[in-house]
Amino acid sequence: REGERKDRRSHKMKSAGEVVIGDGGFVFALEKRGYVKAGPWTPEATVTHPEAVRQLHREFLRAGSNVMQAFTFYASDDKLENRANMSLEVASEGDALVAGGVSQTPSYLSCKSETEVKAIFKKQLEVFMKKNVDFLIAEYFEHVEEAEWAVQVLKTSGKPVAASLCIGPEGDMHGISPGECAVRLVKAGAQIVGVNCHFDPMTCVKAVKMMKEGVEKAGLKAHYMVQPLAYHTPDCNCQGFIDLPEFPFGLEPRILTRWDMHKYAREAYKAGIRFIGGCCGFEPYHIRAVAEELASERGIIPPGSEKHGMWGSGLEMHTKPWVRARARRDYWEQLMPASGRPKCPSFSTPEADQI
Amino acid sequence: REGERKDRRSHKMKSAGEVVIGDGGFVFALEKRGYVKAGPWTPEATVTHPEAVRQLHREFLRAGSNVMQAFTFYASDDKLENRANMSLEVASEGDALVAGGVSQTPSYLSCKSETEVKAIFKKQLEVFMKKNVDFLIAEYFEHVEEAEWAVQVLKTSGKPVAASLCIGPEGDMHGISPGECAVRLVKAGAQIVGVNCHFDPMTCVKAVKMMKEGVEKAGLKAHYMVQPLAYHTPDCNCQGFIDLPEFPFGLEPRILTRWDMHKYAREAYKAGIRFIGGCCGFEPYHIRAVAEELASERGIIPPGSEKHGMWGSGLEMHTKPWVRARARRDYWEQLMPASGRPKCPSFSTPEADQI
Amino acid sequence: REGERKDRRSHKMKSAGEVVIGDGGFVFALEKRGYVKAGPWTPEATVTHPEAVRQLHREFLRAGSNVMQAFTFYASDDKLENRANMSLEVASEGDALVAGGVSQTPSYLSCKSETEVKAIFKKQLEVFMKKNVDFLIAEYFEHVEEAEWAVQVLKTSGKPVAASLCIGPEGDMHGISPGECAVRLVKAGAQIVGVNCHFDPMTCVKAVKMMKEGVEKAGLKAHYMVQPLAYHTPDCNCQGFIDLPEFPFGLEPRILTRWDMHKYAREAYKAGIRFIGGCCGFEPYHIRAVAEELASERGIIPPGSEKHGMWGSGLEMHTKPWVRARARRDYWEQLMPASGRPKCPSFSTPEADQI
Amino acid sequence: REGERKDRRSHKMKSAGEVVIGDGGFVFALEKRGYVKAGPWTPEATVTHPEAVRQLHREFLRAGSNVMQAFTFYASDDKLENRANMSLEVASEGDALVAGGVSQTPSYLSCKSETEVKAIFKKQLEVFMKKNVDFLIAEYFEHVEEAEWAVQVLKTSGKPVAASLCIGPEGDMHGISPGECAVRLVKAGAQIVGVNCHFDPMTCVKAVKMMKEGVEKAGLKAHYMVQPLAYHTPDCNCQGFIDLPEFPFGLEPRILTRWDMHKYAREAYKAGIRFIGGCCGFEPYHIRAVAEELASERGIIPPGSEKHGMWGSGLEMHTKPWVRARARRDYWEQLMPASGRPKCPSFSTPEADQI
Repeated sequence: REGERKDRRSHKMKSAGEVVIGDGGFVFALEKRGYVKAGPWTPEATVTHPEAVRQLHREFLRAGSNVMQAFTFYASDDKLENRANMSLEVASEGDALVAGGVSQTPSYLSCKSETEVKAIFKKQLEVFMKKNVDFLIAEYFEHVEEAEWAVQVLKTSGKPVAASLCIGPEGDMHGISPGECAVRLVKAGAQIVGVNCHFDPMTCVKAVKMMKEGVEKAGLKAHYMVQPLAYHTPDCNCQGFIDLPEFPFGLEPRILTRWDMHKYAREAYKAGIRFIGGCCGFEPYHIRAVAEELASERGIIPPGSEKHGMWGSGLEMHTKPWVRARARRDYWEQLMPASGRPKCPSFSTPEADQI
Repeated sequence: REGERKDRRSHKMKSAGEVVIGDGGFVFALEKRGYVKAGPWTPEATVTHPEAVRQLHREFLRAGSNVMQAFTFYASDDKLENRANMSLEVASEGDALVAGGVSQTPSYLSCKSETEVKAIFKKQLEVFMKKNVDFLIAEYFEHVEEAEWAVQVLKTSGKPVAASLCIGPEGDMHGISPGECAVRLVKAGAQIVGVNCHFDPMTCVKAVKMMKEGVEKAGLKAHYMVQPLAYHTPDCNCQGFIDLPEFPFGLEPRILTRWDMHKYAREAYKAGIRFIGGCCGFEPYHIRAVAEELASERGIIPPGSEKHGMWGSGLEMHTKPWVRARARRDYWEQLMPASGRPKCPSFSTPEADQI
Repeated sequence: REGERKDRRSHKMKSAGEVVIGDGGFVFALEKRGYVKAGPWTPEATVTHPEAVRQLHREFLRAGSNVMQAFTFYASDDKLENRANMSLEVASEGDALVAGGVSQTPSYLSCKSETEVKAIFKKQLEVFMKKNVDFLIAEYFEHVEEAEWAVQVLKTSGKPVAASLCIGPEGDMHGISPGECAVRLVKAGAQIVGVNCHFDPMTCVKAVKMMKEGVEKAGLKAHYMVQPLAYHTPDCNCQGFIDLPEFPFGLEPRILTRWDMHKYAREAYKAGIRFIGGCCGFEPYHIRAVAEELASERGIIPPGSEKHGMWGSGLEMHTKPWVRARARRDYWEQLMPASGRPKCPSFSTPEADQI
Repeated sequence: REGERKDRRSHKMKSAGEVVIGDGGFVFALEKRGYVKAGPWTPEATVTHPEAVRQLHREFLRAGSNVMQAFTFYASDDKLENRANMSLEVASEGDALVAGGVSQTPSYLSCKSETEVKAIFKKQLEVFMKKNVDFLIAEYFEHVEEAEWAVQVLKTSGKPVAASLCIGPEGDMHGISPGECAVRLVKAGAQIVGVNCHFDPMTCVKAVKMMKEGVEKAGLKAHYMVQPLAYHTPDCNCQGFIDLPEFPFGLEPRILTRWDMHKYAREAYKAGIRFIGGCCGFEPYHIRAVAEELASERGIIPPGSEKHGMWGSGLEMHTKPWVRARARRDYWEQLMPASGRPKCPSFSTPEADQI
């Protein structure tokens, strides 16, 4: 099996022009299913309820995802190994790559040295190398400097490296612009750069566009990735959705519909982004909508679409004529869904701004 | 095992004062996970992807549900049997009753005779009797007459019978008031009466209150149940959420938060309702919120609460002081969550009203 | 001139089938123009800035109003006389009746006797009799009992008497239903009964409909009047707009458009109401919209319509084609105007409800 | 009187540090009063209903305005003279300057030559010179080039010249930035530059800030003015409020409250703007709020404040305790007023964007 996987990986990575679809954020989805605690967000469900985690992996795979991320947000080494096994196992059920991921460390925030922080990434990398993952992602970094360190460690593996910051168009925590961030990450050794989490799809695509402009202006080359929230956040400040008063237990009215996801996928594709996925808030049907929007570009329809009529066509047999009339693309594209909440506004005031 | 289950059932049914927590609507939850097709809404996932259905059952059980409904919306007999087996299996993993359910029939709507319609219910009942379910539910009926027929069939089993209409305060499809509907169902033989689906929690509780008033005025006795949508629907007309322009693919902004569920559970309890569950839109964390609100009344905290700090207490260790400040009850009780959708209104116009 | 006015009055009052259009609320309009202080709301502008008051009278007359109310909210006797003179003067510039008005008294609220309260109304009536107004209005009463006393005094004049309560469908301050209130007022001697202030147009029309039903059920006869707010108040409790957090300095987003006024006028007319006017928030263009909607029923177009194209027809010559396309009825009828305020909700919580 | 006025003017103009308060837009205010027709917006009311126009002038004067603009939007010469007389007359009742104003011409839009367009401005200037106005304003220009031509003509008078464009932060109709526009106008001879109409107060202040930065970067000097809409327009595209679907008959929900005006006045003052006024949608109480906010900076309270308690203090004597509790600054500063319109969104889609 090992040999096959290597072939698959090299084949995938060669044809960089094709679209890779990511998965969704695991901690938010598992929190709603009852297996992760909001606040600490630690991933012990991998050990305590492996079937629940495996089921979610399978649903994303079925929805069209062709990357299984061994999510390791704040995971200790033994859980990491467990997690990587699980991803490899489910990935082999379908046509998916497995990515080993590292994230920002508490050590960096408490001002530990470059050597100390890199030592953490090295230990995590060792686990992923043992499991022979297909590629590596340095993801969810608020400071480009720490992401550079992570990339420098990960590229020693010889495997493809992706680097993704949780920033918007205003740049990283020190205001370093998306363009400059991307240039630094490419120079550090990343083949793929992009953003994830913290902002809604359109905002993230905008930030990645700025990254692409920066990279191209610098005469460099890269591929691009985006893995945004599934929440509308037009009212965020530069710190992202954590500062919204609704974080993390009142975000429901902001959840994107499947039709919002179609718009996101199209916009990301038009911007030249080829690794298109999701983060917190994404459910399997969101990823399926991304895969359906890009079905002709990718030449495949996701397995899960057997249970989904494109653009609402499943309503064609409804008994009420006005519901049948919704079985068409322009109806859903133009719908502005009501909130059903007359005492709730459209925008919040991020709390840091109130102080 | 059979003997134990009988004991449990009779124990449960005796202590009618205690609170029974239902589960959520399976077709909507499974649609988002990729296993049910919106439009036909048929439940073949029971056969094709049993692990996915079983996983959802387990999540509701873990969230605090103590009823597993063998959901049979438009199911053929063989699927029914399969489905009942599955419910019994998961129920035995925890402390839950199993309910066999029948719903309104296409035959009634196409004006078939009482005999013909009752024959359908009889066939379904046979399957449930063979599987020895704990009690029976006649659920999702738009016409009280058809529900009466179902109750008349189900009560021949000698098992407890619940009857639930998908109506709001304006009554059934012919405008028969909730109070009158309830009286007719009790007279037909139902021990438990209530409403499910079609309207949001507060609207459904209001309709059940009207049922209770009607039953009491008639000098009758009953227990009460409510299994509403997890969507805010203040703008529905008497036909419920199907007439909303957002049905079924644009309902996201209307999804209730866990805190909305606390309010619902309290309101239902105060109204004297003791079977409190959910229907379309409910996810496991919604049921968990119901169970947490009623933890002291029931004397138990659901298993899933090991992964949930009451009233946001899991945020206590957050790095930002203003996020830590959200780890308290009044914060979440008072929050009016923004929609993040400035082009979307609060209310829609139900489409039947536009014609 | 006296003789002519008597003829006019009796002619007007005979043809009760015709539509009489009221004016708007003076204190709110004059507050925005700088001549009345919000809070005390006293009408000394009549004396200090007569030109400003006269100008507003003229604008309502020009907008189509054919009643000039000598508004006397908390006015002392000398101001009353002054005010009546002014109304008579402007009314004679057009084809308008003059109404002398009395309102609820602080004496009633501080539990003075029927005799004492009636003495106040008698003194006010004397002024109006001296000035020979066309008819009398007892208006803005929260308690039907005090309104009965006022009607009993006013009817001694031999002039037509109208009685208007500031109540909604839930009835007066003691919960006496609109129907019962109306019956009591008719029995006390009022020829015209209705409601004014406190609620939005559609709510007020609903309350007057209930009055009409009550009067008809009692086998009595009356004419009906309505003079609502020009603010949308779907979220009011039974105490009206004063309890809204926005009262009185944040009501702007609730102001009705001219097209909302068309709907109001039509609805009032269909309900059988023939004295249709306005209260707080009405500006001259609101009254003009009422007059334009009922132009064919009344057989006249208001003078002010020389400066107004029906249904936006004045836009026909605009340079931009998409603005020209707004010069049609269905465009404005269907428009759901945005608030431009993304941090503001649709509904407020009335403050009394928060306690 | 002539001599006195000259003294006053030179005194005013010398002390440029002091704050000058403008008036509001006449055509919108007079449209609502019934004297101007929306669409053509022509100012014949000056001749047909001079008392109505004079009354509005007086109200703005009383509200604290110390500039009376002889508004001449598309006016022919004879109306111009009439209008200038009227402004001078009312200005002499208080302590106000009179400005003669010219606006963009249909001739420029139909590509007439510089000579032809300047000839129009010259004729208008002659009228203003004859009437000896205090200063001149070139206002409501969408193209900076035409505004330059106007300034070049007006400065031949030897009187102070102000130039105001109807642009937002995205610049004029050809995308020339506010900074560059301002530099060109100062070079053409304007002592005061700024923006008016088309956008809401905060957007206009932002555009004027950009003008100031441009002028300062160019090593030039100027004073600054701003006269925005009284409508919230966060959803406008670069063409301003005309493209909003609500223009001009559905703008009510967007009207600024007096408290919004306080924020505007403070923001404009902090930005270094010293000529602060209003345009379409401003009513006298809006200008009074601007004057009240800047009362200590200006050392005077407007005459109209005798009828206005600062920050709602007029409510102190209200009978209901929760209404009395609104008689304080922070209540009104923090209020997010509800729209009362549950079917209306916060944002519109400008129509040009829909095509």
